[in-house]
Amino acid sequence: MRTVYLDNNATTMVDPIVVETMLPYFKEKYGNPSSIYEMAHITHDAISEAREKVANFFGANSSKEIIFTSCGSESANMAIRGTLDLCGTKKHIITTKVEHPCVLNTYKELEKKGYKTDYIGVDDNGELNLDELKNLVSKDTALVSIMAANNETGAIYPYEKTAEIVKEINPDTKVFVDAVQAAGKIKLDVKNTKVDLMGISGHKFHAPKGIGALYIKSGTMISPIITGGHQERALRAGTENVPYIVGMGCAAELAQNNLDYEGNEVKRLRNMLEEGILSNIKNARLNSRTKLRVPNTTNIGFEYIEGELILLHLDELGICASSGSACTSGSLEPSHVLRAMKTPFTSLHGSIRFSLSRFTKEEDIKYVTDTMPALIKKLAKISPFQKELSNIL
Amino acid sequence: MRTVYLDNNATTMVDPIVVETMLPYFKEKYGNPSSIYEMAHITHDAISEAREKVANFFGANSSKEIIFTSCGSESANMAIRGTLDLCGTKKHIITTKVEHPCVLNTYKELEKKGYKTDYIGVDDNGELNLDELKNLVSKDTALVSIMAANNETGAIYPYEKTAEIVKEINPDTKVFVDAVQAAGKIKLDVKNTKVDLMGISGHKFHAPKGIGALYIKSGTMISPIITGGHQERALRAGTENVPYIVGMGCAAELAQNNLDYEGNEVKRLRNMLEEGILSNIKNARLNSRTKLRVPNTTNIGFEYIEGELILLHLDELGICASSGSACTSGSLEPSHVLRAMKTPFTSLHGSIRFSLSRFTKEEDIKYVTDTMPALIKKLAKISPFQKELSNIL
Repeated sequence: MRTVYLDNNATTMVDPIVVETMLPYFKEKYGNPSSIYEMAHITHDAISEAREKVANFFGANSSKEIIFTSCGSESANMAIRGTLDLCGTKKHIITTKVEHPCVLNTYKELEKKGYKTDYIGVDDNGELNLDELKNLVSKDTALVSIMAANNETGAIYPYEKTAEIVKEINPDTKVFVDAVQAAGKIKLDVKNTKVDLMGISGHKFHAPKGIGALYIKSGTMISPIITGGHQERALRAGTENVPYIVGMGCAAELAQNNLDYEGNEVKRLRNMLEEGILSNIKNARLNSRTKLRVPNTTNIGFEYIEGELILLHLDELGICASSGSACTSGSLEPSHVLRAMKTPFTSLHGSIRFSLSRFTKEEDIKYVTDTMPALIKKLAKISPFQKELSNIL
Repeated sequence: MRTVYLDNNATTMVDPIVVETMLPYFKEKYGNPSSIYEMAHITHDAISEAREKVANFFGANSSKEIIFTSCGSESANMAIRGTLDLCGTKKHIITTKVEHPCVLNTYKELEKKGYKTDYIGVDDNGELNLDELKNLVSKDTALVSIMAANNETGAIYPYEKTAEIVKEINPDTKVFVDAVQAAGKIKLDVKNTKVDLMGISGHKFHAPKGIGALYIKSGTMISPIITGGHQERALRAGTENVPYIVGMGCAAELAQNNLDYEGNEVKRLRNMLEEGILSNIKNARLNSRTKLRVPNTTNIGFEYIEGELILLHLDELGICASSGSACTSGSLEPSHVLRAMKTPFTSLHGSIRFSLSRFTKEEDIKYVTDTMPALIKKLAKISPFQKELSNIL
């Protein structure tokens, strides 16, 4: 059976070139980069080269601003907890209602430890309320966390402007940007912003799961969350994951070279998918209609139909999609992002995210737009909302 | 040129079988284990299978007791910080003077946060002073950390007995065992001990760098240090590193199957190396003469000769060895482990660790024992301690 993988915001296939690049570091070039013999210099140098590539990918001034971590969640925890550990008595922290659980749940934990938190809302297009932010930042605000792009809707948030607003009110407030869903989809240019910290995750742009990076602007101080050896300038202990670091460097370079392709061809396919569904399925409704979206993501609500049911039937057709972030799946709660956007309850429970990659083919999209109308019609017939559906279909 | 890799306590070659086992999880079986389609069930099930294998490797009662982490340092930090986060007002913690930096430096950080620490000493064989421990454990003791085997000398510590002593005085005190250097070298059987937490690192037994595991005895509560998604029973957020988890499962199974080989053949080669050096080089002195050593490690001091100089010349011969833990190399301080053992200063600075693996061949050992006497003789000639050396050589 055909497999059409449209869940690239959950995770991506590792690019075959990345796999080839990593392979020698398992069986041949396996020296511990902290050791002093030649075999160790090889891995030490390989890390330096990858760090340069990742620094370029961030648009950082220097590779010294890059720390490798084990994932996007670690990057976020390190940025947030590591910043607050040095903020003394300042106990006010701000984020948005639509962050990934690695930020939201970390904020919830911090509330238990006495931090006062504020969550900025979004409008029904998923756009941030920056006026709300202006009124919240004060001299007690230690940190503002904001994502660069939303994992569920693909909405791009104005993190550059957010950082400017924050710094204008309180230059000491640190700004962390979770750029996990922006990396590889839109250009990052962190050096030309007032952002202090930015996190990314390799497996969202065709590196493996289990490698992340954190940009720490030169001069910004944070505490490590994993202490021990002197690795990563004593900010992240643990023997370096050489193969994945090399792989992430390679994946970052490939992603950067493919940014135009993302913005043109991937976007064209995403739009083809979106239009194919919206024009042929009457109870389909586009969530997040903002123009500012990453090129690969669409989130569509199918009114009066249960999302999990759609996903199971899509799976039978070989189509992989998602009803929200993989990190929250398993829970039957509707998406906190769509709820924050006040998505009508009629489509809230039947919202499906499709996320493409540069490996998505036009025939994949055609397969989905060809098969979905009949599928949704079939599921509409067993929906308990026959009366409501009869008004639409 | 021939390469003789005798630094397996720093890191190991990934077993080719482990690499083969991981490969499909990069390009084909890449689904996010938290997603709900078939491709995700495959990775979800692969993790469960690996968790069973790692549980067996620990000698745990259940795979539910195993959490995958990104490295041994994360396992130690998670065990120590995660335990203390739930210990309320108890601020006394104990460890040994010879721990790995991931424990020692974490304790140093905790001292800054108000914890009272005690460090148990060792005798000149590297054996722990358990009487000292008995006198230190009190009702205020939150945690005792002890390594199962020392990375520098290979000395095995009586962690089972330590746990019994601790629990007899205070059943609420938690015991964490850093088993990073024991795993794959001696049998672990944690279920038959009173140990609460035990950490291991994949890259010390032929899995890749960047994967670790933490055993948490059923009923033991700890806080996560990386919060976010619900992965690893909400104890360790972040999309699972499926390839490395599968690789670690495979490596654990292989290591377990090779324990007899380690205890017999690797030990035979280690003893051959040790005897070859000690009998042919007059200023060579065995550090840690305890019978209780892991089979693969020897640590030999070359009196009046600088260790770094020996390592550089060994490197020119293609021999990879180390003067201490890779995590502290780069620093010119002599080993804290050898200092704690009161190793005489005459050999302290010239101590070299050789650590073998199941991939070490007899011809590798012969090459070292054939070439080292001439090397040490050459270096002795340029030593500033000619008078002292003339009495020995």
